[in-house]
Amino acid sequence: MSGSRCARLGGPLVRQLLDSVDSVLFDCDGVIWRGDQAIPGAARVISLLKQRGKKVFFVTNNSTKTRKMYADKLSSLGFDAAEDEVFGTAFCCAAYLRSECGLRGKVYLVGSDAMRQELEAVGIQAVGVGPDPVSGKQLDWASVPLDPEVQAVVVGFDEHFSYMKLNRAMQYLTQKDCLFVGTNRDTRLPLEGGKAVPGTGCLLQAVETAAQRQAQTVGKPSRFMFECVARRFGLRPERCLMVGDRLDTDILLGSACGLKTLLTLTGVSTAAEAAAHRDSGDDERRAMVPDYYVESIADLLPALQGEDDPSL
Amino acid sequence: MSGSRCARLGGPLVRQLLDSVDSVLFDCDGVIWRGDQAIPGAARVISLLKQRGKKVFFVTNNSTKTRKMYADKLSSLGFDAAEDEVFGTAFCCAAYLRSECGLRGKVYLVGSDAMRQELEAVGIQAVGVGPDPVSGKQLDWASVPLDPEVQAVVVGFDEHFSYMKLNRAMQYLTQKDCLFVGTNRDTRLPLEGGKAVPGTGCLLQAVETAAQRQAQTVGKPSRFMFECVARRFGLRPERCLMVGDRLDTDILLGSACGLKTLLTLTGVSTAAEAAAHRDSGDDERRAMVPDYYVESIADLLPALQGEDDPSL
Repeated sequence: MSGSRCARLGGPLVRQLLDSVDSVLFDCDGVIWRGDQAIPGAARVISLLKQRGKKVFFVTNNSTKTRKMYADKLSSLGFDAAEDEVFGTAFCCAAYLRSECGLRGKVYLVGSDAMRQELEAVGIQAVGVGPDPVSGKQLDWASVPLDPEVQAVVVGFDEHFSYMKLNRAMQYLTQKDCLFVGTNRDTRLPLEGGKAVPGTGCLLQAVETAAQRQAQTVGKPSRFMFECVARRFGLRPERCLMVGDRLDTDILLGSACGLKTLLTLTGVSTAAEAAAHRDSGDDERRAMVPDYYVESIADLLPALQGEDDPSL
Repeated sequence: MSGSRCARLGGPLVRQLLDSVDSVLFDCDGVIWRGDQAIPGAARVISLLKQRGKKVFFVTNNSTKTRKMYADKLSSLGFDAAEDEVFGTAFCCAAYLRSECGLRGKVYLVGSDAMRQELEAVGIQAVGVGPDPVSGKQLDWASVPLDPEVQAVVVGFDEHFSYMKLNRAMQYLTQKDCLFVGTNRDTRLPLEGGKAVPGTGCLLQAVETAAQRQAQTVGKPSRFMFECVARRFGLRPERCLMVGDRLDTDILLGSACGLKTLLTLTGVSTAAEAAAHRDSGDDERRAMVPDYYVESIADLLPALQGEDDPSL
């Protein structure tokens, strides 16, 4: 496949590719929906993949929803999806703290209530959610009361991010044995119409700069995101296809873990960016080159619809 | 002097050094005071320097006070200081926007009311000061109303820093011709007792990450900070001494501008750190090695007191 990197996917290649995998992992935003609008044909693609016996997973760096909230959104947009097929960073972060870190204490959470819920679901209590405006004077800030049971600082998307939260996170992180985990490093959250708002990566960078420490992130391109799915469902990497719209997260994760990779052009990255990486001669950039690209995942429909053989 | 880099200053060397300069630039926090406590002997050192005909300046990266507020604080701690001897980044940032950038429009200010006052004093209107809590939904955030007269985003220390401010700054900065200026990159604000709180550098980094642009900073080690003083008072760099407690700001500024440099150990940096830079063989690190160091600027007292010759 290395001879045909970044090939446009179409015709008989689609069937060949789908024959070669058992599981398909989809990023969500920019791939199966944009904001609150489903990508036309995406729901049909997913339902046909399942009919053909493929396992389907939804793998997103967005930390603002629980699995349940994602399953509800998927349903409301017409997707056939179950809660345990959804892997968002709110869920994966909780799984990471529980299974990889064996965390027993509390978390100081710079993040959403959805993250708090996912942490609670694995038995981890989180403090800090919600507004935290500044009060008092500088010298008081350095002496804010810290919860002695907190053993980790977790940073996800937080619309209530504030100087005081930054300060609290820093004060916890001056304790050397305090864990430091971030959901992801996406610097911008793309919205409809080419607009964007600041992403979790901005908040995480502020906390890292203050704490003079680097966080471990769980979201794409961290391998943990794939391992989180693979362990639960016994996936073999070479029998998986990662479908995403971002070269630096989705495609990089896929190639780092040995999955087949498909870029779709309904989101952030372009085919020209992929080609530039391919032709750069730089190994780090070449790890972001997808095996294939499509204009939209609806391009998979003809192959899926025209084929009655259930073995596909 | 390069043969005696990072020498402990004492005895006849003090007089030699003071004879070789006309102006002494003091950083404030960690040098002449710590928080709200004057360094013992510092006020006397400054008053004797003035008696000996030296010009004295107070040069600080802290952006939370106007010149007037600094002059008042200096007076209340017993220092002989005039408003026009004070160069804080609130003042210097306003001077930079006025004289270097020729800014005519408004500023979107992530910063303090003191910064707003200094901007206003040079005829620049600033919007954005004070709390700015989140409201509405993501899609609204990307469409926050922008003031069409804003032509620069300025980031200084802001205890009301919030996600919404980060977002507003980013939306202004997507306009290519919007200027982007930061007061300084200090990552932490040291307080009494070894404590610290997050510094402006953390906020600036968050905005830079969101905007995918680099700010121009005016504070130390940016040369502008010295030029701001030098132009007003016609200083010759080789006849100036920079006294500071930080190698990466005060001393680096001094050596970049060709000043003589003196590290005092009452603040952030240590003599061991200076020696490690000196012995590193790395040019970038060697630019942070002071010519001399003292335990405290009170070590200058004997030479100043024991000498009645007004020419020193």
